[in-house]
Amino acid sequence: MSESLAAQLESFRSYVKKMKSYGEALDVMYWDLRTGAPRKGMEARSEVIGELSSEMFKMSVSDEMGRYLESLSEPGTFERLDEVNRRLVEECKKEYDRSKKIPPDKYKDYVVLTSQAESVWEDAKHQSDFAMFQPYLEKIVAANLEFIELWGYEGHRYNTLLDMYEPGMTVEKLDKLFADVREQLVPLVSAIQQSNNVPDTSFLKQSFDVAEQKKFSKFILSELGYDFEAGRLDESVHPFATGLNPGDVRITTRYLPEDVTSALFGTIHECGHALYEQNISKELIGTPLCTGTSMGIHESQSRFWENMIGRSRPFWHRYYPKLQELYPDRLGNVPVETFYKAINTVQPSLIRIEADELTYNLHIMIRYEIEKALFDGSLSVADLPAYWNAKYKEYLGVEPPNDGEGVLQDVHWSGGAFGYFPSYSLGNMYSAQFRRTIEKELGDLDDLTANGRFAELKDWLVERIYRYGKLQTPHEIVTRVTGEPLNPQYLIEYLRTKYGEIYGL
Amino acid sequence: MSESLAAQLESFRSYVKKMKSYGEALDVMYWDLRTGAPRKGMEARSEVIGELSSEMFKMSVSDEMGRYLESLSEPGTFERLDEVNRRLVEECKKEYDRSKKIPPDKYKDYVVLTSQAESVWEDAKHQSDFAMFQPYLEKIVAANLEFIELWGYEGHRYNTLLDMYEPGMTVEKLDKLFADVREQLVPLVSAIQQSNNVPDTSFLKQSFDVAEQKKFSKFILSELGYDFEAGRLDESVHPFATGLNPGDVRITTRYLPEDVTSALFGTIHECGHALYEQNISKELIGTPLCTGTSMGIHESQSRFWENMIGRSRPFWHRYYPKLQELYPDRLGNVPVETFYKAINTVQPSLIRIEADELTYNLHIMIRYEIEKALFDGSLSVADLPAYWNAKYKEYLGVEPPNDGEGVLQDVHWSGGAFGYFPSYSLGNMYSAQFRRTIEKELGDLDDLTANGRFAELKDWLVERIYRYGKLQTPHEIVTRVTGEPLNPQYLIEYLRTKYGEIYGL
Repeated sequence: MSESLAAQLESFRSYVKKMKSYGEALDVMYWDLRTGAPRKGMEARSEVIGELSSEMFKMSVSDEMGRYLESLSEPGTFERLDEVNRRLVEECKKEYDRSKKIPPDKYKDYVVLTSQAESVWEDAKHQSDFAMFQPYLEKIVAANLEFIELWGYEGHRYNTLLDMYEPGMTVEKLDKLFADVREQLVPLVSAIQQSNNVPDTSFLKQSFDVAEQKKFSKFILSELGYDFEAGRLDESVHPFATGLNPGDVRITTRYLPEDVTSALFGTIHECGHALYEQNISKELIGTPLCTGTSMGIHESQSRFWENMIGRSRPFWHRYYPKLQELYPDRLGNVPVETFYKAINTVQPSLIRIEADELTYNLHIMIRYEIEKALFDGSLSVADLPAYWNAKYKEYLGVEPPNDGEGVLQDVHWSGGAFGYFPSYSLGNMYSAQFRRTIEKELGDLDDLTANGRFAELKDWLVERIYRYGKLQTPHEIVTRVTGEPLNPQYLIEYLRTKYGEIYGL
Repeated sequence: MSESLAAQLESFRSYVKKMKSYGEALDVMYWDLRTGAPRKGMEARSEVIGELSSEMFKMSVSDEMGRYLESLSEPGTFERLDEVNRRLVEECKKEYDRSKKIPPDKYKDYVVLTSQAESVWEDAKHQSDFAMFQPYLEKIVAANLEFIELWGYEGHRYNTLLDMYEPGMTVEKLDKLFADVREQLVPLVSAIQQSNNVPDTSFLKQSFDVAEQKKFSKFILSELGYDFEAGRLDESVHPFATGLNPGDVRITTRYLPEDVTSALFGTIHECGHALYEQNISKELIGTPLCTGTSMGIHESQSRFWENMIGRSRPFWHRYYPKLQELYPDRLGNVPVETFYKAINTVQPSLIRIEADELTYNLHIMIRYEIEKALFDGSLSVADLPAYWNAKYKEYLGVEPPNDGEGVLQDVHWSGGAFGYFPSYSLGNMYSAQFRRTIEKELGDLDDLTANGRFAELKDWLVERIYRYGKLQTPHEIVTRVTGEPLNPQYLIEYLRTKYGEIYGL
């Protein structure tokens, strides 16, 4: 007698839950490593992480998993599953098929390679020595090319990499999206550079007591709706948010005494990620669907809260007096309008993570062009630095004085994360498009911000986006929520209006 | 062809290492739960902990483990193993045999029972309502009686429980040890109570800034040799130390603004545990031998550092000026001798965890008498409160006004941890005996303390005790280090000398 569907589903769900448990244990350990785990315990901890990761990987490609997926995907069975289980089977199958195609030895070698490469990259960046990193990067690109052949692809080879971070995204779509944005941003940036309005930013670079910064960051997090009973705020060298489960979504930040805005905007950015993860439907707990649907949609939320709320004029009209109270000597004589313009200064620069909201997109496009070229074979790793520098000159009008501030600045490639960068700009585009719908349905965003109606705003986002987790694809979400596919015009329009006003264009 | 011994050992070791990895992941999560994990994530986290614990338990009693143990224990094979592997096989076999004897369903019921009982106990303690807790305690005692029959025992039934915390300890030995101590302590306590010397402790109960307390605790930890690169200090409701691996041994403490010594002595106590765990030989990493050999030896170290160093006169002659500097208004006019006597006040009291170094042992003996009586059938759970109160009257001359401050005060029984309490007094005895050997070999302990020769002291303890981890039994350690079995006279002598002087007896 064949096992009943209900019993089969139950075993499958408990198998998946066990995998996810290992994943959550790993995430707690990663969080711990970045928030003050003692140095001397790292070696033993790495072994622990290795054991659990490898167990989790084995489970994802085991014969047992194969049998579940085969029988639950059968026509006549699959259709009988509810929505969550259907998506769960699809998601596990995608992972299973992908992982099964890579021979275990090759995968293991690749894990070792990328973990070595990351520490080589650190040194190379520090010493601005691309030659040091080059052989590692060549191997990583070669391995990815080999994986792409094993995975298979449609259209451009790079598509299969893009799909890992933004399911459904392709070179064909991105080329068009990015061309539209670039065409209109480059002239905007030029106009700003020729403008006589140069915001005064000198007052930002004073010494700001860190204890007060912490207090203000916590206050703003509460205002925006971050639930401190379902999270905590810590410090780490590189700020991040991590969703262990919807009841435990942690944020880290980094306080710089000489810069009052760095920790604050970093915190609001991570708060956006965290609001998403804190509000995923509880029915998805214990499954791989209990996370943001893609890097692009995730980034749309961090950028929405950081830029469209946190860097808006009404936000500072609302909260600047409070900040002035904390730093009467530093900011008492700086008018709110001066502050607002200072935190929205546009300045083409070398370093992506320090770039403003507008030129940030150009940094991303350069990386996108490079990744595409690496995987269609038109660019070799050896030629990367020259290509990088030429593109920076072309798009941003700046030239890196060395590779440390140029091609070696980002960690992503050392870990083999090709296809990740576009998510950042996709996030900007999604957020502007969501904003448009919000304004149609809830009213002007600046009014909402001015009146502190963040709870309403959050409820809307939970209802339309957050609660779904990975139950819908990015394309399904953006189409359902806004009524049309991703459209870059909303971002362009938003940037034109905001910066046109600031720079009096 | 039979598998070679080397290959067999390698599989066994890697199997054990995997189990231990799950254990370390669990310990990170326990630490996290107690140091600020968000409330709303607890439910999901419990499931994760459940999955990993059950996996670890399954591995410890699996057929695979059974096969390793059977073949490695064979005469002719076992003798060929080196010391570490021999002990490892013995340790895993002890655990395997013990766990195998309990039917899985019974074990599972027991885990559920004790986890419910702990929360019932909390409420019962709060409401001073023993009747509420009684049915749970009855079930827990009954389950333990059943387990004892399944495990088997020699002599007293309670011996098999004692052995879990202090391998080799028996009622026969403990009765003698405790009788010796009690006989001589009770008159000493009486003499102190009749003495006219009553230390002034009023100045301890002022408001002491917590930030300064933290600074001082950290300073003292460094002085004593706690390695901050192999640990960290956090806050939790109940202070504890946890050795994740020798490179990561964490301490927590709890700062009370109204009590300057509570956090400090708590920190030094946990520091003793931590020094032990930080200095276990690295060759034991990845095995269950990489921890303290017993609760008694562990407690000997926390008590040695807390009481024999931290509550000694030379310690405060050395560090009191520093404490006065931090609190000039509070302590500026309090002489060091007054401070020294205040932190060594003897006062029979109701609550074990607040008891002084001397009467603490009497609290333990009461619990020991009760546990023995519960397991030889001479005491029923229903009669516990009356028995408790009578013993407190007899040993300490005090009477609990209610069960919350009496029989319900400790968490241990709600978790079924019978056999644990004696460790605390054994720790006191071990520490006094080790102290005697230290004085023979390194010189007077007060001189060492006066001169801050803590590094030497620690090195001695590492060499003689800490590095062995669980490689030797408590009896092997105390005999090797001091040349004789555990002897309570050293504790009695130490307490008589110290308190005789303080109270001018």
